[in-house]
Amino acid sequence: MSFSADDHRFMARAIELARKGRFTTSPNPNVGAVLVRHGQIVGEGYHHQAGGPHAEVVALRHAAELARDADCFVTLEPCSHYGRTPPCAEALIKAGVRRVVMAMQDPNPQVAGRGAALLKAAGIEVQSGLMIESARSLNPGFLSRMEQQRPFVRLKLAASLDGKTALNNGASQWITSKEARADVQLQRAQSCAVLSTAETVLRDDARLSVRPEQALSSISPLQDGHYRQPVRVVLDRRQRLTGKEALFALPGKLILVYPAGSKLSAPAGADVLYVPSLQREQFDLQVLMRELARQHINTLWVEAGARLAGSLLQAKLVDEFWLYQAPIILGHQARGLVAIAELTQLNEGIALSWQDIRQLGPDIRFIATLQS
Amino acid sequence: MSFSADDHRFMARAIELARKGRFTTSPNPNVGAVLVRHGQIVGEGYHHQAGGPHAEVVALRHAAELARDADCFVTLEPCSHYGRTPPCAEALIKAGVRRVVMAMQDPNPQVAGRGAALLKAAGIEVQSGLMIESARSLNPGFLSRMEQQRPFVRLKLAASLDGKTALNNGASQWITSKEARADVQLQRAQSCAVLSTAETVLRDDARLSVRPEQALSSISPLQDGHYRQPVRVVLDRRQRLTGKEALFALPGKLILVYPAGSKLSAPAGADVLYVPSLQREQFDLQVLMRELARQHINTLWVEAGARLAGSLLQAKLVDEFWLYQAPIILGHQARGLVAIAELTQLNEGIALSWQDIRQLGPDIRFIATLQS
Repeated sequence: MSFSADDHRFMARAIELARKGRFTTSPNPNVGAVLVRHGQIVGEGYHHQAGGPHAEVVALRHAAELARDADCFVTLEPCSHYGRTPPCAEALIKAGVRRVVMAMQDPNPQVAGRGAALLKAAGIEVQSGLMIESARSLNPGFLSRMEQQRPFVRLKLAASLDGKTALNNGASQWITSKEARADVQLQRAQSCAVLSTAETVLRDDARLSVRPEQALSSISPLQDGHYRQPVRVVLDRRQRLTGKEALFALPGKLILVYPAGSKLSAPAGADVLYVPSLQREQFDLQVLMRELARQHINTLWVEAGARLAGSLLQAKLVDEFWLYQAPIILGHQARGLVAIAELTQLNEGIALSWQDIRQLGPDIRFIATLQS
Repeated sequence: MSFSADDHRFMARAIELARKGRFTTSPNPNVGAVLVRHGQIVGEGYHHQAGGPHAEVVALRHAAELARDADCFVTLEPCSHYGRTPPCAEALIKAGVRRVVMAMQDPNPQVAGRGAALLKAAGIEVQSGLMIESARSLNPGFLSRMEQQRPFVRLKLAASLDGKTALNNGASQWITSKEARADVQLQRAQSCAVLSTAETVLRDDARLSVRPEQALSSISPLQDGHYRQPVRVVLDRRQRLTGKEALFALPGKLILVYPAGSKLSAPAGADVLYVPSLQREQFDLQVLMRELARQHINTLWVEAGARLAGSLLQAKLVDEFWLYQAPIILGHQARGLVAIAELTQLNEGIALSWQDIRQLGPDIRFIATLQS
């Protein structure tokens, strides 16, 4: 199947539209749609918020009667089921569109292809796969949850140039700059949930919330309020959080993770998730991830210490490794970045591939993926 | 004093010429010269090798009788003394040039201004300071030796992304890529001397020499032989090197540094430099640097372990910090990058300023200076 330059242009516009929902659609995916008639865009739309209309429906309303015989470019297969809104495939059929070009199928294997089949049965020409990689990159979290039944995990660490996250006495505020910390706020705001540990919360009085006042740019989406607070998830194996810590006083959902079999309930203001343990007194992180996916967490932003970082990396539960590195040397006695078992050969190291490297204020931000 | 756009153009050309000598002029500085008559370049030259003609003389020979009434653009004040060649100021006077524009004075305070004075006394118009920063950057080592009586020190380290230089069992070959190692060869070739420790030599059988076969680019200056082997300097406090190590078998000067008062002489093939010690059984690095400058070492490339790195950094004897960082994580039990005394506050860290950050193969090369 081959697509024209115009097809690419209209799909690129649909992808651009989809991105507008990136702070708000969770747990739904970002989707954009464009209706084109005689080479002209006659309708545009994107999904803004779960419960609200889907991208195709917004575009159809925009196009009104001009939708008849139009081509629809949509970044994800139109849905075929009655959920909080009626199925989009049906709406496209009713509107009389001529052709539907979708970037990708529905990632949920149980419904993939159903929307396309409905459209085809109604005599509509259906094409799929145009700009599929760009469309997939709109929704890494949604796709991970659908395809792997776990969130897309971004592990964030902040360190000195020699890989130290804190002095031996614990001092760590602040190794990185206000520019790096503002970026962290933006990443938290784009995440469904933030994961940390009781140790981090107790040591730094961490709130794990989005603080728009830390945005440094007036065009930051944090400044116009177009974001939601991420769910906060705290591993608290020894149930050390009492309810008096600062993060309990904030609005938004807070989940404490306790060992399965624990008799304690959480302090007021928090939910509990019970997760079984592995040997060495660690939570079974695979189970944790499945449970978070079940709670509709698409993207998980992890801010933790060397131990949890090492455990996640070794369990291959890290999709992106984010490191903010400051131009300072703290010396070999300061605290290390990642705790893993001692290696005996260099090829046992955790090999990464760079995705993005850029300067934020005085610091460098690395984004890498794990080599498989 | 103001300079025209043409003046800048001709000085920029002189600086470009000077750079051609960067693998060969040591211990002399890189100098370029351009002669201009009626807006046309009539002579060009650069200093190629100690003992050979200076840049001005090469340009004068090139211009021949066209040098009369010409303007001379030169990156360094013309010399006024009889050394291995007669003074350039005298040659310019004899040739009848009209004006001399120099980027900077001679950095040696004992002769600075003398060349200019000779020229002025002969009725030649003299201007100074055009593109001084670019001209200074041609000769960081020569300037450091003249102005601070020590070499310009580049401390090179290679580490994983979490700041580890070797596994706990010592394995370190190779953390970084062949592209990074080829770059190290190029930097060694541009250095007057390479400094390391007996520990590094014994552990890695390090040769500290330039190996042109490691150059990856056919346009590398290492492949056409336009470089010299750097002097190799090895700190050997406990006199552990026996003369049987690989680096003794190579051509080029090898200096072993022994504690002052030591009775031992060096194995055949090596010179000895006796340097006093400080407390904690460390060499007095300030004295070491003064001695190396006395031996006409302009630029010193240091390849060492965490201890020497820490000592040099804490003694503020590092002009540039070079870190080659590979996209791998080796974990907190591997060996650290820089050994310094334990810090109690973050602001006691060694603060750096980025000069250059780039990707070499899969690795990242950072160049930073110490914040003063």
